[in-house]
Amino acid sequence: MVVLDRPIKFEDVDAAGIVFFARFVSYAHEAMEHFFATLEGGYPRLIMERRVGLPAVHLDVDFHAPARYGDTLRIETSVDRVGNRSAVLRYRMRRAGTGELVAEIAHTVVLSDLRTIRSCDMPEDVRARRLEHLDPPKAS
Amino acid sequence: MVVLDRPIKFEDVDAAGIVFFARFVSYAHEAMEHFFATLEGGYPRLIMERRVGLPAVHLDVDFHAPARYGDTLRIETSVDRVGNRSAVLRYRMRRAGTGELVAEIAHTVVLSDLRTIRSCDMPEDVRARRLEHLDPPKAS
Amino acid sequence: MVVLDRPIKFEDVDAAGIVFFARFVSYAHEAMEHFFATLEGGYPRLIMERRVGLPAVHLDVDFHAPARYGDTLRIETSVDRVGNRSAVLRYRMRRAGTGELVAEIAHTVVLSDLRTIRSCDMPEDVRARRLEHLDPPKAS
Amino acid sequence: MVVLDRPIKFEDVDAAGIVFFARFVSYAHEAMEHFFATLEGGYPRLIMERRVGLPAVHLDVDFHAPARYGDTLRIETSVDRVGNRSAVLRYRMRRAGTGELVAEIAHTVVLSDLRTIRSCDMPEDVRARRLEHLDPPKAS
Repeated sequence: MVVLDRPIKFEDVDAAGIVFFARFVSYAHEAMEHFFATLEGGYPRLIMERRVGLPAVHLDVDFHAPARYGDTLRIETSVDRVGNRSAVLRYRMRRAGTGELVAEIAHTVVLSDLRTIRSCDMPEDVRARRLEHLDPPKAS
Repeated sequence: MVVLDRPIKFEDVDAAGIVFFARFVSYAHEAMEHFFATLEGGYPRLIMERRVGLPAVHLDVDFHAPARYGDTLRIETSVDRVGNRSAVLRYRMRRAGTGELVAEIAHTVVLSDLRTIRSCDMPEDVRARRLEHLDPPKAS
Repeated sequence: MVVLDRPIKFEDVDAAGIVFFARFVSYAHEAMEHFFATLEGGYPRLIMERRVGLPAVHLDVDFHAPARYGDTLRIETSVDRVGNRSAVLRYRMRRAGTGELVAEIAHTVVLSDLRTIRSCDMPEDVRARRLEHLDPPKAS
Repeated sequence: MVVLDRPIKFEDVDAAGIVFFARFVSYAHEAMEHFFATLEGGYPRLIMERRVGLPAVHLDVDFHAPARYGDTLRIETSVDRVGNRSAVLRYRMRRAGTGELVAEIAHTVVLSDLRTIRSCDMPEDVRARRLEHLDPPKAS
């Protein structure tokens, strides 16, 4: 599990005064960028130089409680499943301080060649990073 | 079914050159605002004066094909289910011109009093608007 | 002058309950995309196929009054100045209905080759579109 | 001067492949939130409990160089001028590593009661925080 503390920004709320629901999907992406920060050059190098990416094919999102300006989310990123070309990442977003679960996202991605947006095999370092945080760990 | 044509904006894409996945959730909200435009004062009056809203409790999102700057999405909004306090909206997002399905979102909302963010009964006009586009229509 | 009516979206406001100030800069870009919709293929073809764009070098923004969810902005786009490689666009954003001035932006752009992000001469159709809406019109 | 390191996010770029110009205005706000983090409860408490805010009345923005995904901006926040009800903040945004100036924003704000969006006197702690980073320091 990799943890990212993410304060809600002034512009993240909507006309109802709570965090706009689409922002949680952005937070999930930020948590994924953070998750891959240990790769050489991080996620940016994967995208900009190696030209492979992780487009989403499915999202399953549960909203448990509203978040407001002034809250900080503690985002716990783990991996549910790793295949040859796809993986499922899970983000549990808690209110820092109380630990209350605010939102939970399961994010299915497919490794893709960004020149064609077609699936391709997962590079070894990307796969290794995922296996490291597989929950529960795969018996080897 | 209510249809909204939504051109992709210059700022909607990401570093991979395709529409950022969280934007589709924003598009779903735009389509919902459009869906309720027939209410008196539209969705803004519901939020700003009547102080009831439709926070999401669940999202189920399928991404079928990438969208790019220059594409226009044709968003078809319909209703899967209507209860006393909750409902499920469905958005089918197609590439205008070809009709190719790009993304599909099922969006579960709970009618809520925005002063407390607690569920409340659905106002009659909101319920009527939904029943009008229930798919398939409920036998009466 | 080219006019675009732009309703404020649910997600455009901030934690103070008014439209977030950076959104007005996004609205300016939308108005520019609309301004160039008469070019063949519009602004998307300019960017995606012809690979020239109009990066900003300067912005001068005056905020006169807050905007809120439920407002629609009437954005009037005109051209202050056209050179060989640069131009100044002006956006007057009024509250639709009352005509009250909400914000005004002067936007200096430089025609650029997007492969290098270096300035280049303005294509003839882009220049012609600007001259058409020069305010006051240039004596010919 | 207060410094914030701000990595460019995956979703910050536009269809031209560089950071969308309105994002720099968002970054300025993030830098201001960071600048006021030393107040008790920070900027969120100012907005949410004390109900005073700092709406912008003017922005002057210079763009010097494009930024891309993978860049980190080093944002230097200082204060040009402090009055009873208004102030001018200055943000110099440099490419971390090289120090190259990417963008510079002068941001004029007016202390406002958020219940009415009317100007009000600057609270003493807000004024003190500004004076601390006045550049050049005011002789006392």
